[in-house]
Amino acid sequence: MRLILEIIGTIAFAVSGAMVGAKAKMDIFGVTVLGLTTAVGGGIIRDLLIGVIPPVAFQMPVYALVAIAVSLIVFIPAIRNRIDTDSFVINLVDAVGLGVFTVTGVQTGAAFNNAFLSIFLGAVTGVGGGVLRDIFAMRQPVIFVKRVYALASLAGAALCTALMPVSDNIAMLAGAVTVVVIRVLAAKHRWNLPKAN
Amino acid sequence: MRLILEIIGTIAFAVSGAMVGAKAKMDIFGVTVLGLTTAVGGGIIRDLLIGVIPPVAFQMPVYALVAIAVSLIVFIPAIRNRIDTDSFVINLVDAVGLGVFTVTGVQTGAAFNNAFLSIFLGAVTGVGGGVLRDIFAMRQPVIFVKRVYALASLAGAALCTALMPVSDNIAMLAGAVTVVVIRVLAAKHRWNLPKAN
Amino acid sequence: MRLILEIIGTIAFAVSGAMVGAKAKMDIFGVTVLGLTTAVGGGIIRDLLIGVIPPVAFQMPVYALVAIAVSLIVFIPAIRNRIDTDSFVINLVDAVGLGVFTVTGVQTGAAFNNAFLSIFLGAVTGVGGGVLRDIFAMRQPVIFVKRVYALASLAGAALCTALMPVSDNIAMLAGAVTVVVIRVLAAKHRWNLPKAN
Repeated sequence: MRLILEIIGTIAFAVSGAMVGAKAKMDIFGVTVLGLTTAVGGGIIRDLLIGVIPPVAFQMPVYALVAIAVSLIVFIPAIRNRIDTDSFVINLVDAVGLGVFTVTGVQTGAAFNNAFLSIFLGAVTGVGGGVLRDIFAMRQPVIFVKRVYALASLAGAALCTALMPVSDNIAMLAGAVTVVVIRVLAAKHRWNLPKAN
Repeated sequence: MRLILEIIGTIAFAVSGAMVGAKAKMDIFGVTVLGLTTAVGGGIIRDLLIGVIPPVAFQMPVYALVAIAVSLIVFIPAIRNRIDTDSFVINLVDAVGLGVFTVTGVQTGAAFNNAFLSIFLGAVTGVGGGVLRDIFAMRQPVIFVKRVYALASLAGAALCTALMPVSDNIAMLAGAVTVVVIRVLAAKHRWNLPKAN
Repeated sequence: MRLILEIIGTIAFAVSGAMVGAKAKMDIFGVTVLGLTTAVGGGIIRDLLIGVIPPVAFQMPVYALVAIAVSLIVFIPAIRNRIDTDSFVINLVDAVGLGVFTVTGVQTGAAFNNAFLSIFLGAVTGVGGGVLRDIFAMRQPVIFVKRVYALASLAGAALCTALMPVSDNIAMLAGAVTVVVIRVLAAKHRWNLPKAN
């Protein structure tokens, strides 16, 4: 079950990265690097912060291979042109990815018994890949402006961390669902945080 | 004493990061991330380079919490509009932060008995957060152009490293004072390094 | 022999980084940081991923010192103006650097017995410094658009990884030569990968 959800998240994030690369007119290699980075970048940063060496992305290459395959498919114009990154389906799948990565991040750091660290690792796993994607594509990281994206991850990570002493499974389910619900509601109602002006 | 100086440095760096985020019209979350990153980013890079896992910023969350609180305060327009980032007070407090972070960086790596590493760790701790801030805000890192900013950190780190065999306290005091004096003089006399042309 | 080739690669990469900094009108410090980052950045990222702490660049400062010296020399206008980064010599020396760094990256990670990791480490060691250079200079990483640059590194890393069980020396020689040949041919015949459009 967890594997299936992680693969869904990997696909969603790889699509998001590859689309950014394609819109920036990168070549097939750049598009693939962006898809790969978006999908596994957050997990690699998380693993470096807590000393998981080599990072899980290298110990279990299945996620990276899926991300590479998805990126190559997205590169095909006939397929790419049918992908609407603003559609409900893409947003939902991306929200599932964000939720799954967030709670796996929390669980990975749970052994440190440090709530602050756990929440941070959850959010970094969730949004770190997207930040790297935007830096590579030379655009302002969207998590700094996109409707409560990182905040959804933080909220899910906090709930997951709080429920960890009860049960890993309940904590991860509740955390991931929280992320998905917040993101879907935020997209539907166009929630925004106040901006500096 | 060291704790007080580190908190001063954390506040100064968080103000600097939050102001950059606010000027880039980020939302309250982005402003906070930039304040946090500027304050603790250099220390996290330093810790990753020498295997302090998890980084001190997570073992002692007080610095991160101070940085978050400062960023939220800076976000308030009535307060933000009164902050003049070019003023003498802000420059002085920032110089103290740079000095304190530089010498704590040197001390953190002292056990490796590697002068080159020590000086580098001092400078990375001092300026690393600012580089991350500028990358996230999509602007050219100011340490590459700002009046002898990183050079002040390197000079203080070198002096601190040289005096470490004598006494930790003397080395750190002399290193930090060196950074502050160079920065204050550089700001007052508008020192610049030669540029490529 | 390996030391000589690594020094050649360090010089080539430092020239490339310093030239980017000089073209961006950075000061002497920024130019030096860019030269240094380009030369040793890829190796540092590689070492962080597999837990070589502190990274080799700090254990053996000779590479960093060479990169700093080269950057300072490149900063001198009379010298800089004679460097044509598109010339055959510069491209060849850079290709040698890419080849050498790629295969040393593969070898560094060989103990993990993970082909996917080995190839990735080879490519990261080869192109990681250039990516950091471009991010610091606020330009789109050229490896995402430059003629089969990263692909040459990946091809050499894959061949090197495949031959490692036979012999370290043969594997590294074959891998490095592959990178150089592909790069020289790509530059001569202006090979490009297909771009998204």
